[in-house]
Amino acid sequence: MSMRVNMHYADLKDSYLFSSIAHKVSAYQQTHPDADIIRLGIGDVTLPLVPAVVEEMGRAVGEMGRKESFHGYGPEQGYDFLRQAIQGYYGSRQIRLDMDEIFVGDGAKSDLGNILDLFDQENRVLVPDPVYPVYVDTNVMAGRSVAFMNATEDNGFLPLPEPGLKADLIYLCSPNNPTGAVYTREGLKAWVDFALNQGALILFDAAYEAFISDPLLPRSIYEIEGARGCAIEFSSFSKTAGFTGVRCGYTVVPHELVFDGISLNKMWLRRQTTKFNGVSYVVQRAAAAVFTQRGQQEIASSLAYYRENAKTIAQALEKMGIDYTGGKNSPYIWMKCPNGMTSWDFFDHLLSQAHVVGTPGAGFGANGEGFFRLTAFGDQAKTRQAVARLQALLSER
Amino acid sequence: MSMRVNMHYADLKDSYLFSSIAHKVSAYQQTHPDADIIRLGIGDVTLPLVPAVVEEMGRAVGEMGRKESFHGYGPEQGYDFLRQAIQGYYGSRQIRLDMDEIFVGDGAKSDLGNILDLFDQENRVLVPDPVYPVYVDTNVMAGRSVAFMNATEDNGFLPLPEPGLKADLIYLCSPNNPTGAVYTREGLKAWVDFALNQGALILFDAAYEAFISDPLLPRSIYEIEGARGCAIEFSSFSKTAGFTGVRCGYTVVPHELVFDGISLNKMWLRRQTTKFNGVSYVVQRAAAAVFTQRGQQEIASSLAYYRENAKTIAQALEKMGIDYTGGKNSPYIWMKCPNGMTSWDFFDHLLSQAHVVGTPGAGFGANGEGFFRLTAFGDQAKTRQAVARLQALLSER
Repeated sequence: MSMRVNMHYADLKDSYLFSSIAHKVSAYQQTHPDADIIRLGIGDVTLPLVPAVVEEMGRAVGEMGRKESFHGYGPEQGYDFLRQAIQGYYGSRQIRLDMDEIFVGDGAKSDLGNILDLFDQENRVLVPDPVYPVYVDTNVMAGRSVAFMNATEDNGFLPLPEPGLKADLIYLCSPNNPTGAVYTREGLKAWVDFALNQGALILFDAAYEAFISDPLLPRSIYEIEGARGCAIEFSSFSKTAGFTGVRCGYTVVPHELVFDGISLNKMWLRRQTTKFNGVSYVVQRAAAAVFTQRGQQEIASSLAYYRENAKTIAQALEKMGIDYTGGKNSPYIWMKCPNGMTSWDFFDHLLSQAHVVGTPGAGFGANGEGFFRLTAFGDQAKTRQAVARLQALLSER
Repeated sequence: MSMRVNMHYADLKDSYLFSSIAHKVSAYQQTHPDADIIRLGIGDVTLPLVPAVVEEMGRAVGEMGRKESFHGYGPEQGYDFLRQAIQGYYGSRQIRLDMDEIFVGDGAKSDLGNILDLFDQENRVLVPDPVYPVYVDTNVMAGRSVAFMNATEDNGFLPLPEPGLKADLIYLCSPNNPTGAVYTREGLKAWVDFALNQGALILFDAAYEAFISDPLLPRSIYEIEGARGCAIEFSSFSKTAGFTGVRCGYTVVPHELVFDGISLNKMWLRRQTTKFNGVSYVVQRAAAAVFTQRGQQEIASSLAYYRENAKTIAQALEKMGIDYTGGKNSPYIWMKCPNGMTSWDFFDHLLSQAHVVGTPGAGFGANGEGFFRLTAFGDQAKTRQAVARLQALLSER
């Protein structure tokens, strides 16, 4: 006998979505060196960090260079100064969290993957289709089978619990990646009631909450009564403050979450203190600057910039009579491919005829076929140019 | 039925070592407010980041504030500029690594925990006693039973494979935490031969390699023939360059590591791209600065400062005729408690009579009883003062 690997990795489907896109784009660029390709595909931000964040991070770097202000190991769950700021951010929306319910991490992706350490392998996992592929892959790695719920045009890409449904771990992402759809309070309430009734746990991905401007739409699942008893919330500075390359997020694990008599908050603390050593001091200082008055004003203008892009895209689609979701309280626009084209056919068509790159919906699951994702994170002038090309292309016929 | 938790967490022993120490120290300080307590307990560094690192990190922060030089999502396995620098660092010691065998992470602790995702639960785990508690806890969390090998005075705290030994996953840490003992080439060769023979995998923790100054002692397991076929190496900038609060490390997974027909390198890449989003750009720039000529010169002077502390402590113990290991090619000094005292009795004695704090060896495992760990990471003047107090205390009798 020799060392045996985790054979569940063999059950993973190879994810070729973004590498296929990159390959197709670079092949096209090689044969058409003069084509000015505009990318509205990948969900990465393009605006730099705001000055309040840059200054504070620079100050923290300076601190690290002087013996009297140097910081070594910090608390694994995050410095108090940042957790207090996050607590205040929730407090401003009338959500009360205890300090020790907030865990600072290096991004929602890490925490969404690592949280699975806390759960038994036999739990039934429920994931919307289409979906951010990480929810599925991380469960497959752990040997869990995953059931899908259909997010389709019929339910506005916002599935609700159906009669007879059974699930232990339920993933919800609102505003949704990739569809841009946002749950109402009533929608989330249906899920919270279902989870409380079944003894299920909701893993709520709120990474895009900052894009919600409609005051009637919930930005946190804890706006829903009972959610503290059935939901963990994951959030991030990536899209809120352009931290995709800075790496910081936070996870909320309320004390009410007790399963099998065991506190998930205590388990997560144990997981993080054992397998993690906290986020870089300079990064935590940068993140805290986001919550200052100046930081909030500055990121508001970045968010407005991206919202303007979303509006540009959405208005053009409306004008062309193309169905879409998102684009209003979300940085993503999920459009129906014109003329019944498949996702990849439309990708090829748009690339070759308009030199615009988006993401084929089929890459996010079976229900994504026939849809296409555009993002609002691009440069404003280029986004306008891309939209003009899209309009020209689709009015040709 | 409701959601079930990972019940293996219930098998974890509560680790009170460092919290017990903190509690005892603060209780003593409260009743003796004038006591000038010197801490040689926790393994955290005290010197600030070197100027080459501070400047480069500050420059990277500036880049992040300008649109034309902003960095969003980076490669999960690390930027080429840093992996090339690490490749060069190994190359300077005649160890050839492919770029894609090097994975940049946020610290050895994270990678040592997360690597276990790749392995089947049934593997037999072998861990030295005494040991860095994380090796044991991370395996217990995953439901693996752990076997111990005795690290004692008789084997110089460097256990070797014994006849009849069976193991699939073997943890080695050299220079060792907590004992400061360092394997010779012959010692590591015995382990590599054993692992190759058994089809076992060695998880080699090289976090303290920079403290080895004896050219005859191996600083990487890949200095040993055959190790590429049986060992993953974990290393860190924490102790090498004072990055305990900056958070950066790296893990080497050679292509030769194929178990059950599956490449561990490919599995780890998949794990990291799915559950991790890379280390902060500014942190990676800071880490790369460590490998510049100026960075190397500057960290050499920090390392010399800590080595001087180790020498101060070791020489005093020698003078007093107290047995110890480490202190020469390691930042840790593992001393035998005088007069047959237990670890905690000596802790209390040292705290109350000399106002010096160390770490009771019993906290690292059964074989640590009767031993005591001191670290070289303190301030030089305070370390000398602590040693003087220790000498005064132990010569009293």
